[in-house]
Amino acid sequence: MNRPGFRLPVVAGCALALLASAGCAVTLEGDGASTNQTTAPVALSSWNDGPVKATIVDFVDRVTREGGPDYVAPHNRVATFDNDGTLWAEKPLYFQFAFVYERIRALAPDNPGWANEEPFKTIIDSDATFPPGIVESDFLTLLVAGQTGTTQAEFAAQARSFLATARHPQLDRLYPELVYQPMVELLDYLRDHDFEVHIVSGGTVEFIRAYADRVYGVPPENVVGSSFAYEFRDTSAPPQFLRQPSLTVFNDSAAKPVNIQLHIGKRPILAFGNSNGDIEMLELATGGGGASLALLLHHDDAEREFAYDTGTERALTTAAQRGWTVVSMRDDFATVFPAQGR
Amino acid sequence: MNRPGFRLPVVAGCALALLASAGCAVTLEGDGASTNQTTAPVALSSWNDGPVKATIVDFVDRVTREGGPDYVAPHNRVATFDNDGTLWAEKPLYFQFAFVYERIRALAPDNPGWANEEPFKTIIDSDATFPPGIVESDFLTLLVAGQTGTTQAEFAAQARSFLATARHPQLDRLYPELVYQPMVELLDYLRDHDFEVHIVSGGTVEFIRAYADRVYGVPPENVVGSSFAYEFRDTSAPPQFLRQPSLTVFNDSAAKPVNIQLHIGKRPILAFGNSNGDIEMLELATGGGGASLALLLHHDDAEREFAYDTGTERALTTAAQRGWTVVSMRDDFATVFPAQGR
Repeated sequence: MNRPGFRLPVVAGCALALLASAGCAVTLEGDGASTNQTTAPVALSSWNDGPVKATIVDFVDRVTREGGPDYVAPHNRVATFDNDGTLWAEKPLYFQFAFVYERIRALAPDNPGWANEEPFKTIIDSDATFPPGIVESDFLTLLVAGQTGTTQAEFAAQARSFLATARHPQLDRLYPELVYQPMVELLDYLRDHDFEVHIVSGGTVEFIRAYADRVYGVPPENVVGSSFAYEFRDTSAPPQFLRQPSLTVFNDSAAKPVNIQLHIGKRPILAFGNSNGDIEMLELATGGGGASLALLLHHDDAEREFAYDTGTERALTTAAQRGWTVVSMRDDFATVFPAQGR
Repeated sequence: MNRPGFRLPVVAGCALALLASAGCAVTLEGDGASTNQTTAPVALSSWNDGPVKATIVDFVDRVTREGGPDYVAPHNRVATFDNDGTLWAEKPLYFQFAFVYERIRALAPDNPGWANEEPFKTIIDSDATFPPGIVESDFLTLLVAGQTGTTQAEFAAQARSFLATARHPQLDRLYPELVYQPMVELLDYLRDHDFEVHIVSGGTVEFIRAYADRVYGVPPENVVGSSFAYEFRDTSAPPQFLRQPSLTVFNDSAAKPVNIQLHIGKRPILAFGNSNGDIEMLELATGGGGASLALLLHHDDAEREFAYDTGTERALTTAAQRGWTVVSMRDDFATVFPAQGR
């Protein structure tokens, strides 16, 4: 379903730039009443013309053509998108970890033992946004230390504050300004054609929700992610969810289709990822018989973003074997990030 | 969001009766194209006039009145409904168990040991739809035996077959004909006012999905239930979910608000339940400050349905303490079940 009430450009300052350059639906939220101001859209204008853009447009044309052989009713037009590395950048490390490190530094005075305990010591001792020396086996410890032990309301406020202030060390932008403009346009394009767009990410669900609505137009109920255990407590008003130090869902690889089934209950007909952890989600989308489209974003643009294949090798091989569409950031993205209005 | 494409009356045969008596939105699904035929609705016509109906109508008026003090923007108009005993009947036992027993009897020849093993023996030896002697501590064993070990596609086909053929032993109707007509009208009424309606049930999610779309107009992604572990397997086309013998989510009591947060990520402003297991969901809905409505269906109608308080005692007490609206089936439901067209 199209949810125009949720759509806002990434950053308030970029609204005019987007309107001028690309055309987009902008919803201005007032004190209850809202006004929809939609300019004539120039869909996918941040995509270069070429076989990839043609493949996307052709697919959407086919599944929306009533009476055509590939027609899919609107309620089955489900599209699922990975987040890190697909909708926004993910280097030098998943952006959520910049938030985790910020929280760990804030909590350090209350946890004096961390001064001599790895991996905390590395983070506390460093001024770097992404200190070197943190490895994947540290991730869970750090996530639990930095993202649990608060109420959900406190966590959401912390996440919003981080997203409004923290800047990427190399690209010098707020993290929500590091979404890919062509992808934001693709989400809009799909919704304009009555697709229901979901994010299916390995990141934790509430961190993504802290900006997905405003930045991607994806409402909270359409975000599937990893998650911690919650304890519901009604001893105070309002009732609270306490974030418990236990990761109950790690939404990667085969867990992605499983959680799509549990949360959505429909097979996506379009899935978009960028890494090995997205293979099963793309298999789900393409394994059902009817028209489907699997897309894989290849980070091959060292000049405007990053160029890397690590963590993507199997996905690229599988894409070649199965005929999935590989999107070249260098060749297919006319622009990478949204215009900045500051 | 309103999802007119999903709305169909309970049973094909009752469409005309509903149109004639109550007015309702009927979607006729053809070969791709769909036609929306909406008669002038007589909203909530199966509810008796009185304080409960007035409370519902007043609440919806207040939260939808733009500029009013209780206005809630459409994207925050979330309503959550329990299923068993709230949207359809639940006596003499949750209807899903009639399906579980049917499956266990079908599987008995392949499981000869069950002939001498309880609780299987009781079920296999009995002709009753709901054999006496099954107790709550048997439930998990029976659910695992009867609802796992297949692919999700096989399970869905079995569930559809059960729902199309099995009849309630006392009420002599197909189970999908035992939904409460006033509740179906309430779901429509809320969607007509831009509420997003979700089912949040202790029943397992895929059983509810097997009929919720057709009967309630609630699409798969809006059903939150208990669930088994799934294994995703892409060794064959199409990819399959294998239903594993492990209940990973038991969606009752405090788990209801927790899973509302995980799946929906918004606080409902209206919640409707009928038993002790719904208390926390109603607390969540009413604990947020703004306008909210908590409703509890009281089964006090031995003549047309059943009269019982067992399992509802704490909920009734809490409702009295907190001012939740208690709905009397006897007094507030003008009709209980949909007209039958057969």
